[in-house]
Amino acid sequence: MFVVMNAAASQAEANAVKSLILAEGLVPYDHVGAERLVIAVVGEIGARKPVLISRLEALGGVESVTPISRPFKLTSREFHPEDTVVRILDAVVGDGSLTVMAGPCSIESREQLRETVEGVVAAGATIIRGGAFKPRTSPYSFQGLGVEGLRYLAEERERTGLPVITEVMEPNQVDIVAEYADILQIGTRNMQNYSLLTAVGRVTRPVMLKRGYGATIEEWLMAAEYIVSSGNPNVILCERGIRTFETYTRNTLDLAAVPLLHHLTHLPVIVDPSHATGKRWLIKPMSLAGVAAGADGIMVEVHPRPDEALSDGEQSITIAQFAELMVSLRAIHAQVGDLHGDPVLPNAVLKVGGTGKL
Amino acid sequence: MFVVMNAAASQAEANAVKSLILAEGLVPYDHVGAERLVIAVVGEIGARKPVLISRLEALGGVESVTPISRPFKLTSREFHPEDTVVRILDAVVGDGSLTVMAGPCSIESREQLRETVEGVVAAGATIIRGGAFKPRTSPYSFQGLGVEGLRYLAEERERTGLPVITEVMEPNQVDIVAEYADILQIGTRNMQNYSLLTAVGRVTRPVMLKRGYGATIEEWLMAAEYIVSSGNPNVILCERGIRTFETYTRNTLDLAAVPLLHHLTHLPVIVDPSHATGKRWLIKPMSLAGVAAGADGIMVEVHPRPDEALSDGEQSITIAQFAELMVSLRAIHAQVGDLHGDPVLPNAVLKVGGTGKL
Amino acid sequence: MFVVMNAAASQAEANAVKSLILAEGLVPYDHVGAERLVIAVVGEIGARKPVLISRLEALGGVESVTPISRPFKLTSREFHPEDTVVRILDAVVGDGSLTVMAGPCSIESREQLRETVEGVVAAGATIIRGGAFKPRTSPYSFQGLGVEGLRYLAEERERTGLPVITEVMEPNQVDIVAEYADILQIGTRNMQNYSLLTAVGRVTRPVMLKRGYGATIEEWLMAAEYIVSSGNPNVILCERGIRTFETYTRNTLDLAAVPLLHHLTHLPVIVDPSHATGKRWLIKPMSLAGVAAGADGIMVEVHPRPDEALSDGEQSITIAQFAELMVSLRAIHAQVGDLHGDPVLPNAVLKVGGTGKL
Amino acid sequence: MFVVMNAAASQAEANAVKSLILAEGLVPYDHVGAERLVIAVVGEIGARKPVLISRLEALGGVESVTPISRPFKLTSREFHPEDTVVRILDAVVGDGSLTVMAGPCSIESREQLRETVEGVVAAGATIIRGGAFKPRTSPYSFQGLGVEGLRYLAEERERTGLPVITEVMEPNQVDIVAEYADILQIGTRNMQNYSLLTAVGRVTRPVMLKRGYGATIEEWLMAAEYIVSSGNPNVILCERGIRTFETYTRNTLDLAAVPLLHHLTHLPVIVDPSHATGKRWLIKPMSLAGVAAGADGIMVEVHPRPDEALSDGEQSITIAQFAELMVSLRAIHAQVGDLHGDPVLPNAVLKVGGTGKL
Repeated sequence: MFVVMNAAASQAEANAVKSLILAEGLVPYDHVGAERLVIAVVGEIGARKPVLISRLEALGGVESVTPISRPFKLTSREFHPEDTVVRILDAVVGDGSLTVMAGPCSIESREQLRETVEGVVAAGATIIRGGAFKPRTSPYSFQGLGVEGLRYLAEERERTGLPVITEVMEPNQVDIVAEYADILQIGTRNMQNYSLLTAVGRVTRPVMLKRGYGATIEEWLMAAEYIVSSGNPNVILCERGIRTFETYTRNTLDLAAVPLLHHLTHLPVIVDPSHATGKRWLIKPMSLAGVAAGADGIMVEVHPRPDEALSDGEQSITIAQFAELMVSLRAIHAQVGDLHGDPVLPNAVLKVGGTGKL
Repeated sequence: MFVVMNAAASQAEANAVKSLILAEGLVPYDHVGAERLVIAVVGEIGARKPVLISRLEALGGVESVTPISRPFKLTSREFHPEDTVVRILDAVVGDGSLTVMAGPCSIESREQLRETVEGVVAAGATIIRGGAFKPRTSPYSFQGLGVEGLRYLAEERERTGLPVITEVMEPNQVDIVAEYADILQIGTRNMQNYSLLTAVGRVTRPVMLKRGYGATIEEWLMAAEYIVSSGNPNVILCERGIRTFETYTRNTLDLAAVPLLHHLTHLPVIVDPSHATGKRWLIKPMSLAGVAAGADGIMVEVHPRPDEALSDGEQSITIAQFAELMVSLRAIHAQVGDLHGDPVLPNAVLKVGGTGKL
Repeated sequence: MFVVMNAAASQAEANAVKSLILAEGLVPYDHVGAERLVIAVVGEIGARKPVLISRLEALGGVESVTPISRPFKLTSREFHPEDTVVRILDAVVGDGSLTVMAGPCSIESREQLRETVEGVVAAGATIIRGGAFKPRTSPYSFQGLGVEGLRYLAEERERTGLPVITEVMEPNQVDIVAEYADILQIGTRNMQNYSLLTAVGRVTRPVMLKRGYGATIEEWLMAAEYIVSSGNPNVILCERGIRTFETYTRNTLDLAAVPLLHHLTHLPVIVDPSHATGKRWLIKPMSLAGVAAGADGIMVEVHPRPDEALSDGEQSITIAQFAELMVSLRAIHAQVGDLHGDPVLPNAVLKVGGTGKL
Repeated sequence: MFVVMNAAASQAEANAVKSLILAEGLVPYDHVGAERLVIAVVGEIGARKPVLISRLEALGGVESVTPISRPFKLTSREFHPEDTVVRILDAVVGDGSLTVMAGPCSIESREQLRETVEGVVAAGATIIRGGAFKPRTSPYSFQGLGVEGLRYLAEERERTGLPVITEVMEPNQVDIVAEYADILQIGTRNMQNYSLLTAVGRVTRPVMLKRGYGATIEEWLMAAEYIVSSGNPNVILCERGIRTFETYTRNTLDLAAVPLLHHLTHLPVIVDPSHATGKRWLIKPMSLAGVAAGADGIMVEVHPRPDEALSDGEQSITIAQFAELMVSLRAIHAQVGDLHGDPVLPNAVLKVGGTGKL
């Protein structure tokens, strides 16, 4: 449930509400909207719900108390109606601008990373991606350059001024990755690695959470809830395809997830067409489709010479193809800004203020 | 396999090739390209392939003989490199223009159909849809108005001059539906109803073949192959979502199928966001995404008062929403024409002439 | 809903109930239980339900009126608590005995069928299977011997005295297939071919309905409802695997469907491990598992020389392997009879009489 | 690839083989068969394969060098033809005996655990299960008693003499869980948590690896390969259902995985019908089916009063139901021992000695 304070409520009144919540063994979370404060109550409430609502409503400064029917709370539009906008260095994700994360699947060498970054930055990428720790299905495949790769990434940030994103695979790696990278990525296989979710919830870096290839949208939002409820509100979601019976593509890109997420949650949504399709020549049409569906941006794998790549070469595009993709993406993005209005919500939601996709 | 005749080949030489094919118990199919004739050889060739190739190559007027590795032959880009363009009355599907099929899920009455058609035509629909025979999961649900519905549809064609499309459910219905409708639709549950596919392959009306909700892209093209090999080359494919574990949407719209199909086949591709999502407010973003992915058009369910609809009301949009959708669709479509170039083909294909998406 | 007449109700009282149902535009179906008559009311009842219940309860001879919450009515355990037992010649399906349907995927010749039948009958098969009309993904694959195959099947029935089962693919074939075969099979691709379901619902031959490879259990039962509500109560269900992301097996055999169906419906359930797995060496363990899960029997493809088969050879077992399978099946079946008691039903159901799996 | 030493090969000859492997940057793994030693070579071999085979074949004591075509090496039947038998205290898994792991989903209190253990041990359970660290979809659900739960588990081992199994969720927990528990369980959400797999690969406790709900059999074996290649050969696989479009059951239990795994790998296979079905009354038939399919045992959730359980009550059976299940399981298990012979292998495999399912 969440407690909406009235516009004139004092800090002391807010504290009294939180004290009551804590006394019940539950946890209060603030959301400071444009006009007023909302306090979410999380934890297992169970049968005491009606009594608790009555007690909260009786406190000073409380305008209303509303149950949240969905299992996700802090990530829901009901609690936080305005879009979350994530700012990293000069990049902004979720404000209506077009985010493009580009770079190699794996960092193979300082030279390969530099050549790729020069190409994608010249073409207009806004965030640099590159894998240093690689989760591989086989224990015998190339596992990434590790910390050496992180150092090369950090060098590129220094050179270009653009933020860098890379994957973190276990709780013990969070500190070292957070030292070098600007955005921490959680991969599809780790979407329900709760120890890792909690660990990245405790750092100040934004987190990009990829959808598990077998996960429902609700489970994905519950995984984001682990991060946000651990203290980190800056979560970006990344749709990368789900597993189905179709075998022509590696996965099935679920683009309906994009408008669905904009409806259910305030978090930004990125589309990854590289892993979703596994085919280089599908990346452009699916990127355009993702942006047309309302995505806040895309993440795409680029390699100077894809056929020589140590991982996922068949789904990487060349620097020239990336430059051509950028031209097309900008043309579509220029149209969609005005086209996607407020999604029609099935039931009225609290309008705490702010603007955005709601 | 297919036999490419050289540009100067005579009719007699072509006949000699076909005679040899027939003598082997196989069937020849012509494809008259811009510059030369190609003859497909279909049937179970098996172990005699090398000998048969030698014998065909030895005939006069034969330029080359090429095996087709894919199981679909007549529907493949290899055999027929130029796009198939389907013309019905003044409507054209597959020539780069934007096709929009709109109308009610079920025809409920002459008035309901008329009101809907007036609205969608005013907003720019190019083809009128309406269900007369309805396949329903339950034998106790409304099964459609039948022939009475067909008559109302035909009236709307007379009034508007636009072609009408409606579903045919069994071989015995093909003649009566073809009498009233301009395009015959095969529904998702009947995608592998081979008797029905063969029956619609014998009429002159174009056929729109929806993807089975559990069918792979290859099976879908094999179903189209049944229609084309029965004599009807005018097949339009319609992606309408596949069944996955995700339950927020009714089905998962597989938009990667759009560029994949443009790569594998010469047939036009339509996207149906109504059945794919089952949610009214997802229709607009998914329509835009479909067109951005390169679809030749969309099919959408419209109802004057969706909440009163006898079937699928929750996924129908109002006439006003349809008008707004058309504005957005045109904006995206105006961009994509130039963006989708020739898909990069994995292996060289026969260039018989013509232009198009190839 | 259904109306339970009391044990002493007269025929005139039953007729009065049916007249009222018919007057409402609905259809009454009888179920004569061991002690009393139950009349199901099918059709779209909608908002008039409470009034209709009151009016029916007020009639003479009516003991109670109960709504059926599930969308399937005549096929539900609520309406028909005792197991349906299907008798064909001397074979009985659904009475606790072990049904084994065996024979070739396709009938290739009189000799091939005879050789197979002699082998499987000697080993203990109770019903002979063989395909005459074959639904094939490709229009260029062997489509079966047609009526010639039916004649060979009928010869085997004459020779062995055992019933024969074969597939029917379209409404126009129903009469000819019913003339030669004892059980009509509806294949997986036609599970929602409603014209065909209605057509086989009008003949007196039992029907075996295979599950659609992309169909839910509820849709499967609704398909059976089409047959039963058209007048044919003798429906056998056949689980043959569903389509999933796993690619080692052709399909994923959903054995939990067996006890689920025994819980939801009174119809017998057969398991087909041949199509489910697509691998010869998985047939034995999956047959044993199916019988252990409570299936009423199995259907298995047998070929004298599987490597020479015209269709599905890789999933056919030899006659010797079939004989060995029968020994194992009997050992497991001898155990399970006592092990499967009454499934625990989530809510009390009407006990009209009879015994069985309920 | 793997190197088969001849029966008379000396230790020095084996060492020479391993030195050459190490000098190439690859890793040798021993498998001591009944008659001779086999050394697997793992790592990225790539283009040097033919040269490496020649060089190895030229060494003294080498009988043959064979490539392994499958991506899993140490877990494959090719490398290790005899069944792996895991021994923990007096329990044995994989030797043909019936393993039954039973206990509560979550340990809720010392009393609840004790009451359950007394019941299941009296009925014949061979291993005690209980959750102390619980992976929960929601961060607000009961997360388990943690170390306190581990202590209660250890008490039950002392009292009963039976081994205990419990889940470990992150690398940092491995030591503490290994201190209290006899078998470490990796849950479905962590099947591709490679840091965790490597961590449990470094301890001496056996590991039970559950299949990811969206994972293919090949990915599952690759996950097991991570554990075995890290040094721990005692891995037990547990099939617990995969995610499909069917919604009546929580997951779809893929029982064909049981004989497939016995064919592909030497590791024992357990079936978990509780999580697979999510319905109490499906546990018995699916347990029987699992054992009939050849599983080495089952894992089942038992609770004294399922309706009061803090987690997964709807899929837990009572102690009385468990006792009845044991009777049925033993009856089926007594039959299957003789029924499952050697699976027919598609290609000849190295017979190093030993007996078993191969």
